[in-house]
Amino acid sequence: MAVPTAHRDQAPDPQSGLAARQAIRSGRHRGPTSGLAPGYVQGNLVILPKDVAADFQRFCELNPKPCPLIGTAVPGDWRIPALGEDLDIRTDIPRYRVWKHGELVAEPDNLNEVWRDDLVSFIIGCSFSFEEALMADGIEIRHIACGCNVPMYRTSVATAASGAFHGPMVVSMRPMSPADAIRAIEITARFPAVHGAPVHIGKPEQIGIRDLAKPDYGDAVPVGDDEIPVFWACGVTPQSVIAAAKPAFCITHYPGSMLVTDRKNSEFAVT
Amino acid sequence: MAVPTAHRDQAPDPQSGLAARQAIRSGRHRGPTSGLAPGYVQGNLVILPKDVAADFQRFCELNPKPCPLIGTAVPGDWRIPALGEDLDIRTDIPRYRVWKHGELVAEPDNLNEVWRDDLVSFIIGCSFSFEEALMADGIEIRHIACGCNVPMYRTSVATAASGAFHGPMVVSMRPMSPADAIRAIEITARFPAVHGAPVHIGKPEQIGIRDLAKPDYGDAVPVGDDEIPVFWACGVTPQSVIAAAKPAFCITHYPGSMLVTDRKNSEFAVT
Repeated sequence: MAVPTAHRDQAPDPQSGLAARQAIRSGRHRGPTSGLAPGYVQGNLVILPKDVAADFQRFCELNPKPCPLIGTAVPGDWRIPALGEDLDIRTDIPRYRVWKHGELVAEPDNLNEVWRDDLVSFIIGCSFSFEEALMADGIEIRHIACGCNVPMYRTSVATAASGAFHGPMVVSMRPMSPADAIRAIEITARFPAVHGAPVHIGKPEQIGIRDLAKPDYGDAVPVGDDEIPVFWACGVTPQSVIAAAKPAFCITHYPGSMLVTDRKNSEFAVT
Repeated sequence: MAVPTAHRDQAPDPQSGLAARQAIRSGRHRGPTSGLAPGYVQGNLVILPKDVAADFQRFCELNPKPCPLIGTAVPGDWRIPALGEDLDIRTDIPRYRVWKHGELVAEPDNLNEVWRDDLVSFIIGCSFSFEEALMADGIEIRHIACGCNVPMYRTSVATAASGAFHGPMVVSMRPMSPADAIRAIEITARFPAVHGAPVHIGKPEQIGIRDLAKPDYGDAVPVGDDEIPVFWACGVTPQSVIAAAKPAFCITHYPGSMLVTDRKNSEFAVT
């Protein structure tokens, strides 16, 4: 008796990373990727010409907390097989930003017009992964509860420089009760590939943050007197560093429009 | 050619738990056990009559952070084979405290005169184990740097009651920089058998502590403006609970004079 078999052209699980990328590629999904493919890792994109790519890769390796590299492509290649079956970095993100000498020059829906054979793609882990683990433990994520962006701050903490890439670390902040802060440290320490444990707690002024109500990126969120601000190294750091380095050419994702991968958040937990 | 073999009556490694217990039993070592047998687990002692022992065991199981049980003896038995070769709980601790109906009645060097066939011994993990791991990571332990006892506080946090055993959790406090506090949470979370991760950070008033400079047990230590107080559940909790429960008969170790075991601190780390 014949047993039904899976076909190569069978539609993927609609909640999978592959289905999300197919929806984006075909134009069926536009806009932010938050909430797409629950449980799958989303990543920040940086694309640089080969002549500065090695310096940037070393920058990431020197600064693994703000810049946890989860995937790198071969120069000129739009595929990143380690992160997804049938992945095409030119088409699988809803919106991109193209930069020349530090100036934003375009925000296209795909990279078909601007792709070059000398471009190297880097994918950097994102806090969506650890936020899922925190919420699964019952911890409230304030900016999600408030329906806004996470507040982010430029700090007085310098990153380790590599070539033209240098500048301050950017952190994201989530206010929590002391008990939740302890749990959050325990949980995020298990996710080194997506920023890992916090870099600071409780004393904003020690890392050069003067006013929690005035973030440099994202939105301010309320912090209760009974709460502690908890600071994680943030994936906006490489964008801030690239803006200062002003490379001749660069592509990043449009804020909030991430690469959805085939990797599961749970795979990124170390035991 | 004959190869030298180890003899049963060969002297143990002088830095081992066994050597420490033999030195204590023979009277060669008296006083606090701090610094003896580096790397070996030390434990708090509680001995209770069989008729209340089950309630106390359940109390420990309900409150694993302040009362992490690392060994239990058979009623009437002075051996705890899981914790040490040749271990005799009647003689292997430098000094004991004997209590009747909550009153301290004696502080003997051994239990030979007071031992009874209905006594059940419990050994509870101690913060010496995790302090060793913190110092190995380069974190300063303030009370050790100051050469005094750790400050301990009765909190407004209730333990889960079992029979006559109930009362507030006692915590120990170690002030740290924010970065060290984060590392300390990551490290001690790996040691659930010796109090585990902190129970509170940063806001003493939230757990009923009015003045850090006035600990209920131990000694006050300086806390810098740039530091955060970090609170761990403390092994003094069972002693405080027993003092309130006033059992007809009870034996504990004399403060600072612990049971040195054959188990290594590193064995207690979960990965």
